[in-house]
Amino acid sequence: MNRRVLLKTMPKGKLKASDFEMDSAPMPRIKPGQVLLKTLYLSLDAASRVYMQGVTYRDAIVKDHVMTGLALARVLDSLDPDLTPGDVVEAETGWQEYAVMPARKVTKRQGGAPLHRLMSAAGISGRTAYVGMTRICRPAPGETVVVSAAAGGVGMVAGQLAKLAGARVVGIAGGQAKCRWLLTDLGFDAAIDYKSEDVGAALAQACPNGIDAYFDNVGGEMFEAVLFKMRDYGRIACCGVLSHYDSPSPGPGVMGVPGLFVAKRLQVQGFIVSDFVQDRAAIDQKLDLLLSTGKLKDRVDILNGIDQAPAGLVGMLAGNNTGKRLIRVDPDII
Amino acid sequence: MNRRVLLKTMPKGKLKASDFEMDSAPMPRIKPGQVLLKTLYLSLDAASRVYMQGVTYRDAIVKDHVMTGLALARVLDSLDPDLTPGDVVEAETGWQEYAVMPARKVTKRQGGAPLHRLMSAAGISGRTAYVGMTRICRPAPGETVVVSAAAGGVGMVAGQLAKLAGARVVGIAGGQAKCRWLLTDLGFDAAIDYKSEDVGAALAQACPNGIDAYFDNVGGEMFEAVLFKMRDYGRIACCGVLSHYDSPSPGPGVMGVPGLFVAKRLQVQGFIVSDFVQDRAAIDQKLDLLLSTGKLKDRVDILNGIDQAPAGLVGMLAGNNTGKRLIRVDPDII
Repeated sequence: MNRRVLLKTMPKGKLKASDFEMDSAPMPRIKPGQVLLKTLYLSLDAASRVYMQGVTYRDAIVKDHVMTGLALARVLDSLDPDLTPGDVVEAETGWQEYAVMPARKVTKRQGGAPLHRLMSAAGISGRTAYVGMTRICRPAPGETVVVSAAAGGVGMVAGQLAKLAGARVVGIAGGQAKCRWLLTDLGFDAAIDYKSEDVGAALAQACPNGIDAYFDNVGGEMFEAVLFKMRDYGRIACCGVLSHYDSPSPGPGVMGVPGLFVAKRLQVQGFIVSDFVQDRAAIDQKLDLLLSTGKLKDRVDILNGIDQAPAGLVGMLAGNNTGKRLIRVDPDII
Repeated sequence: MNRRVLLKTMPKGKLKASDFEMDSAPMPRIKPGQVLLKTLYLSLDAASRVYMQGVTYRDAIVKDHVMTGLALARVLDSLDPDLTPGDVVEAETGWQEYAVMPARKVTKRQGGAPLHRLMSAAGISGRTAYVGMTRICRPAPGETVVVSAAAGGVGMVAGQLAKLAGARVVGIAGGQAKCRWLLTDLGFDAAIDYKSEDVGAALAQACPNGIDAYFDNVGGEMFEAVLFKMRDYGRIACCGVLSHYDSPSPGPGVMGVPGLFVAKRLQVQGFIVSDFVQDRAAIDQKLDLLLSTGKLKDRVDILNGIDQAPAGLVGMLAGNNTGKRLIRVDPDII
């Protein structure tokens, strides 16, 4: 049997674990051109809350269907010449133990020690950070870069990449423990705990010369606070809007838009990592090299068992994770 | 004597003509490296209202001083080897009949038939439109481009440049007369009268395939209405924020920022024409060629006499002008 997580109630306000339901279905069967996959790790992504709000840059999540999600999986059976049983792949399996997928929608992965790195700093979240930081933020040595949700899967890599580029890096995260980790383990120059500090005042102190680049994972009030402290010709990479995802109304608009864009001549760009699919292999290789030479650190926040996925996502939207949150679906892997 | 316009009251709410005062001062005298200029035309610019709100990308306007402003002027006397009496120049003289300026802050202009074109489509406003349209909006043939304040000095050129690039162009302007002019004289594909139409609904009708690029002169609600109709990978050139200039409070924030930037992968960039000073001569030459070959049309909205400048600026902030508003300071020139 195939254990799966279905989205049973389309959330109106905050997402709850009880909006999901476990279910068992017969093992799926493959046809020519398809592969049977066994899920190893599920990537939990805050953005998946958005897909419940309707069609965006991808299909909406549909009620009573298997919850959408990216996974690292192993090929169990293949009716495609390019994939062989045993191969490790990345695929949008959704939240289920087994999945049958067209081989063309599956990407083979190499390396990974440990394996879960391929779903974290050497995977979707590292890649996202890489694109936003190197293509949009483009920090020069000595510049000041701010990263929000800095202790999350994307933010932790974004900040480290900015450090590697010679920038002064300020992370915004929720709680003392996360801030301490950013400072002591990841080498951030400053960390702001938005739960206990006034972000505007703390930014003014941590960025006395203003902010040259901002990697934005949250939108809302933090976007506003940063905006007023941007330097002329600054760059803002809009990666996510955590502050709005889990809310029935989008909240008030950001002040200073577009007036400050003009006055400061800012470049503000939204992006989605999948737009850079043509560079994916090259980016993965670069991240892998940085990780294996110890220049980049990974951190995962693993919950065990597919039944933990609903509460894991709900907790993630509340900011409970440090590092990239994954669900270990196959208990036998490390 | 030198007749001048001083800003006597720093506006709190809306700017009034009575915030200014005429005054007469002795003719200024020149020193080595300086030139004496006679003002021909003053450029009225809505952005000058911003400089009254404090320091931005340039000095704030100071109470009791000559009002800031760009002019086309003639050199009357020169103690600099590069400038000769009779030369026509562009300079930040402020609102006065005569000015003494360092020669290095004065730019010689050639051509201009009629002369006032050098202050309009072949000058500061044409150049601003050129930079925003060609460097940020970058329309491809067949794309849909929206321009706000489309019947103003910048907007009219921006829209025409988009037409020349093969785009479908939709202008937003205030009033039927302006809209008719955009359609019949400038060849815009559609025009929306924001004073009598619902901009969101009108945009939906005029842009059935969405908006690829937006040249924004107004910010505020129109920015918001356009934002929701942008296509993926669209570009927004933030040139000005007319909706906020003449107001004590900046108004509510723009909804959908940065959520829609992410979902639609928009590139949004603020710019100021003076950042492109190194390309100025090349841009002026291109505009001049387009104008002299009839591919680009100019329109000026000229008021006579320096004493008309205060009411002229106040009226401009209310949207009374069609085309580029100038003050003819020297009654003898055309």
